[in-house]
Amino acid sequence: MVDPANTVGIPVNPTPLLKDELDIVIPTIRNLDFLEMWRPFLQPYHLIIVQDGDPTKKIHVPEGYDYELYNRNDINRILGPKASCISFKDSACRCFGYMVSKKKYIFTIDDDCFVAKDPAGKAVNALEQHIKNLLCPSTPLFFNTLYDPYREGADFVRGYPFSLREGVSTAVSHGLWLNIPDYDAPTQLVKPKERNTRYVDAVMTIPKGTLFPMCGMNLAFDRDLIGPAMYFGLMGDGQPIGRYDDMWAGWCIKVICDHLGLGVKTGLPYIYHSKASNPFVNLKKEYKGIFWQEDIIPFFQNVKLSKEATTVQQCYIEL
Amino acid sequence: MVDPANTVGIPVNPTPLLKDELDIVIPTIRNLDFLEMWRPFLQPYHLIIVQDGDPTKKIHVPEGYDYELYNRNDINRILGPKASCISFKDSACRCFGYMVSKKKYIFTIDDDCFVAKDPAGKAVNALEQHIKNLLCPSTPLFFNTLYDPYREGADFVRGYPFSLREGVSTAVSHGLWLNIPDYDAPTQLVKPKERNTRYVDAVMTIPKGTLFPMCGMNLAFDRDLIGPAMYFGLMGDGQPIGRYDDMWAGWCIKVICDHLGLGVKTGLPYIYHSKASNPFVNLKKEYKGIFWQEDIIPFFQNVKLSKEATTVQQCYIEL
Repeated sequence: MVDPANTVGIPVNPTPLLKDELDIVIPTIRNLDFLEMWRPFLQPYHLIIVQDGDPTKKIHVPEGYDYELYNRNDINRILGPKASCISFKDSACRCFGYMVSKKKYIFTIDDDCFVAKDPAGKAVNALEQHIKNLLCPSTPLFFNTLYDPYREGADFVRGYPFSLREGVSTAVSHGLWLNIPDYDAPTQLVKPKERNTRYVDAVMTIPKGTLFPMCGMNLAFDRDLIGPAMYFGLMGDGQPIGRYDDMWAGWCIKVICDHLGLGVKTGLPYIYHSKASNPFVNLKKEYKGIFWQEDIIPFFQNVKLSKEATTVQQCYIEL
Repeated sequence: MVDPANTVGIPVNPTPLLKDELDIVIPTIRNLDFLEMWRPFLQPYHLIIVQDGDPTKKIHVPEGYDYELYNRNDINRILGPKASCISFKDSACRCFGYMVSKKKYIFTIDDDCFVAKDPAGKAVNALEQHIKNLLCPSTPLFFNTLYDPYREGADFVRGYPFSLREGVSTAVSHGLWLNIPDYDAPTQLVKPKERNTRYVDAVMTIPKGTLFPMCGMNLAFDRDLIGPAMYFGLMGDGQPIGRYDDMWAGWCIKVICDHLGLGVKTGLPYIYHSKASNPFVNLKKEYKGIFWQEDIIPFFQNVKLSKEATTVQQCYIEL
């Protein structure tokens, strides 16, 4: 006989932890004290820390976390001449962590991202929401006006084609930021005091054929589905353009997901972004990119991959 | 000298009332007592009431509202043989109201839609939000992850191309529904008790190339920009398909807006939808449409209008 006692109070579909299938990748140049606040949510997971900048500096990781740490010397040793593909003095170095991971899922977060609160004052378990987003389908072929149709209390609205209701696999989950919004240097300069206080309680699929600015600060993805395209470009030390590493990856993954019939979600979860970076330094890093993107975005908007490109690798090479 | 006294406490950009530039169109078969609740927001405007069904029935309109009312006899008299283009026994008859209006903007609302409350408990002035949506630009060419970039407290995020930040004119504002969601008959049958309680505090542009299910219950548009395409199809009495009137209009307007470089927004404002229609009756009306849409949506997804089609009328004829 089945004993019903144990199911009382347990939600019907608890989000799986995926403890053994997910790595957390953190690029950093400082002590990781921000992990104290994340302990209730992140401690069960394995961390891959990519130390940027001076490799002789010792990074402190809070007690009790299971981690591996790579500094520039490690990257050079492991990759040899190919180490030049990994950016230096730029958070784009995080993609080294994606490469050394052997897990199916990656969650990457910046070290100035704290736990956000929802409007009811409850701490947001960002990783749990990313896992939810990745495990449930996306709907890139038709817009659902009540947002994520798979969410509790929501569904497909009248007029949504029944043949599209199965959705497609989700490859990427892009989370947002309360407090300091992810603005470019000119906007930072114009609106130095703007803070994001609007908690929009929605997750949505970015429709097929539409590009978006993918920020690497609070991002999760399925390595098996899209991993090889999650390369954050060559930025930072010695490179002409900075602060477009995640944007580059975002254009590439979106075009490839559209081609391969995979989904990209944005919206929840929020993190609390604590520090605005210096807009003057950012402008210096960005300004060549501002011109560059005007040329390159139309390319990504119009590119058509061939039918022969059926894997992420083939698509990336074709791009 | 400029006297600063008068500006104290006045918002910098109050939403214009557009009292003389907007008509409210209401299709109905019953007394319009629901307008009592809307009085603080809607009384300044002119109403065009399209009475469906039995023309001998007397519709009661609350005191103090300025209105014109058309029943089936009026429609037959005014349109003569062309009256057959206006649906009978179906809320699609509302498009007769769009036709007789001489104003630039239309707001249309069903008579079972009440004033919603936002999460702070404040009554939502739906029309004011629609006017805001219509008067500020749309961004169909690139997705902004913080939603409407023109809203107070928001902007374009890092990586949004500067050349696209002016946006395009907004032709349509599609509002949503708390309480009874706009579900099709099969979903109503499967989830009879589902209520929408999630207030998503966002307005967004539906990207170019993406179709959506446009519901006619809480909708505003710019007649000058898209009026001729806002035809709700021939449904109701004597027709094989029902409950696809607004969907038909939605597919048409979206394809035409995309072609002409106009924007379509969805999200805020919410209304409170009070009554679920009968799912058994709905299934009877809908079931042929369920097959039909599977054939016709791919047509709308793939149709390319010619360069010669530069007006809404030309586009519609070409479609």
